[in-house]
Amino acid sequence: MAGRDLGIIRDGGMLVRDGKIDMVGPSDKIDINGAEVFDARGKVVLPGFIDAHTHLVFAGNRLDDFERRARGETYEQIAKAGGGIWSSVKKTRAASEDDLLAEARKHARWFLKCGATTVEAKSGYGLSLDEEIKILRVIHRLNEMPMEFVPTFLGAHAIPEEFRGTPERYVDLVVEEMLPRVASNKLAEYCDVFCERGYFDVEQSRKILSAAKKLGLGLRIHADQLTNNGGADLAAELGAVTADHLEQTDERGIAAMKRAGVQPVLLPGSVYSLGGNRYPRAREMIDAGLDVVLATDFNPGSSPTPSLPMVCSIAITEMKMTPAECLTAATINAARSLGRADKIGSLEIGKQADFSIFDCEDYRELMYWFGFPQTHAVFVGGQRVYP
Amino acid sequence: MAGRDLGIIRDGGMLVRDGKIDMVGPSDKIDINGAEVFDARGKVVLPGFIDAHTHLVFAGNRLDDFERRARGETYEQIAKAGGGIWSSVKKTRAASEDDLLAEARKHARWFLKCGATTVEAKSGYGLSLDEEIKILRVIHRLNEMPMEFVPTFLGAHAIPEEFRGTPERYVDLVVEEMLPRVASNKLAEYCDVFCERGYFDVEQSRKILSAAKKLGLGLRIHADQLTNNGGADLAAELGAVTADHLEQTDERGIAAMKRAGVQPVLLPGSVYSLGGNRYPRAREMIDAGLDVVLATDFNPGSSPTPSLPMVCSIAITEMKMTPAECLTAATINAARSLGRADKIGSLEIGKQADFSIFDCEDYRELMYWFGFPQTHAVFVGGQRVYP
Repeated sequence: MAGRDLGIIRDGGMLVRDGKIDMVGPSDKIDINGAEVFDARGKVVLPGFIDAHTHLVFAGNRLDDFERRARGETYEQIAKAGGGIWSSVKKTRAASEDDLLAEARKHARWFLKCGATTVEAKSGYGLSLDEEIKILRVIHRLNEMPMEFVPTFLGAHAIPEEFRGTPERYVDLVVEEMLPRVASNKLAEYCDVFCERGYFDVEQSRKILSAAKKLGLGLRIHADQLTNNGGADLAAELGAVTADHLEQTDERGIAAMKRAGVQPVLLPGSVYSLGGNRYPRAREMIDAGLDVVLATDFNPGSSPTPSLPMVCSIAITEMKMTPAECLTAATINAARSLGRADKIGSLEIGKQADFSIFDCEDYRELMYWFGFPQTHAVFVGGQRVYP
Repeated sequence: MAGRDLGIIRDGGMLVRDGKIDMVGPSDKIDINGAEVFDARGKVVLPGFIDAHTHLVFAGNRLDDFERRARGETYEQIAKAGGGIWSSVKKTRAASEDDLLAEARKHARWFLKCGATTVEAKSGYGLSLDEEIKILRVIHRLNEMPMEFVPTFLGAHAIPEEFRGTPERYVDLVVEEMLPRVASNKLAEYCDVFCERGYFDVEQSRKILSAAKKLGLGLRIHADQLTNNGGADLAAELGAVTADHLEQTDERGIAAMKRAGVQPVLLPGSVYSLGGNRYPRAREMIDAGLDVVLATDFNPGSSPTPSLPMVCSIAITEMKMTPAECLTAATINAARSLGRADKIGSLEIGKQADFSIFDCEDYRELMYWFGFPQTHAVFVGGQRVYP
């Protein structure tokens, strides 16, 4: 959906029964019939935001990288100085499963505070069989919280130090050991690969993703973030559900995604955080008819924000998306990219009653006033979960 | 101050007596002696943020301008289409003083939520004697809230439609009627002028500010935002306390400010919001020894954010300021620019006990995790005012 018609109901109401939406329409047409009433007068009620790309589970932060970036160092210089992904991998490996869970829960509450109710979460800071599984278990345990986490296996997030000289052996490990274990234990719904120069090339990415597909996992790809290296084409070739980042993707990649029905997941928060100015071509993607998704890319290195409203602000300011397109991209389009468009992502009869209420009178205010969430209350399955 | 030494105390404590800081130092050296204890273990305690440049009092919003900007229209095109400052002036004039106060109070609570305890507030959406005074009265009435507002008279924010063909007559009105009334009724501490092509040229700005100076008002200037038209030089010539914006200021303007002791007030939130990429030369200003201030420029047109942490994030990412420089710029340097460095802006014995507590372990996290405030509690004069 491109977000041209949001179906806004003024003075609207909604009846929730057994955690699902039972009626929705003008307030005076809703049959209250003894139900408990939550008064949202003068406020905006939206479907809970759905964040389709996060790296939620990691230990520590990357404050030193952040300072180095302020001094003008590049992502690659920072990695060479002992920062970058590898520093998070070391801290994550050293952390116990319980400590990781505690940190992830703290961060998950930030998402709720910003109005999100469903969050995709990738592994990828473990980079060994046991450590990747530890992270996926943490994601599963997060589901004890009153919101939903969708697990994605990203064992191919980076070549670990132990395999620096022998990347093919790491690819084999992912394909032969990690993926079968992840699939047989149903630890992930999706498999993702960081397809990029210095990480996994197109050939290695194809090998991993093809194996994942055979095992029944859906595919997502980190594509064309730093270089236009064919990531979007690979996503199209393999029938991936999404191609994510796409800062460098050109019209050819856009056409390929369109032909194959791949959804672009755009992550402008990471372009902002890295101090860049090359944003993905959102307008061309929307004009091509692609169902664009916006996500936070929440991670400690390149996008430390849990706020989809903030990401929408950046998308409007820097990519010239409209507020309506942003709202669609962070709700129903995101739901579709996670295979859940029949259950969440809009306020329709029969769907799960996941919704957020904001302290403003026009949904555009969410993205216009920026830097702080205007969240008043968040409900999941009809139950108030925030504040 | 450039922020090289923040004087951070680990495991620190503070004793507050009669609203002032009585002791500060390592926790175990603080003589509690029966005082009520607020446990901030594992958290960061900072001086309340001080926002030295806001347009806090206005009616309505500018959502339509926001959408137009997303469609690629410029600030000038939007103004011609009936948006821009003038649309806020019309709504503000039409609003009653009480309604304006209610809106301003709502926005003021956003500042508290983001950790600010002192906020400069300019008039400027009235542009007639009575309407400017109405706004200044609202600013005074805001001081019934548990935080401090510093009033600045900005009658010269734009040439009102009634004077489009005769701008000199509006300048005379400001000088001959508005300023004397503002000064004799002590309605403002400072006078500001929007010195810019299409607004007030250097000659008109000099006339207004010179008159204000004679009446005992301190001077602040909107300088060199859209064009390098000599605003910083004028600030130096007149001994203004601050020159604000400075996106176009070059090394000559920087040298002039240094000679005259003018403080630069940088407003990167407005550069971001307008979709620009020309940020002021913060590094050169700091290296020149200027006491740089960061402020939100909170206003409905070009910077709809009340969050100094968000502004710091942008300053780090886009202007390569360090987190320590940002903290100094949003506390003690801002206090100095408002003539209050002896009372607020740092946690020192004898100062007012205005402080904010954040849910993080390192002050840099405030600016690193972005898009939502990590505020845990805010105190003014030793009293908890948020949440």
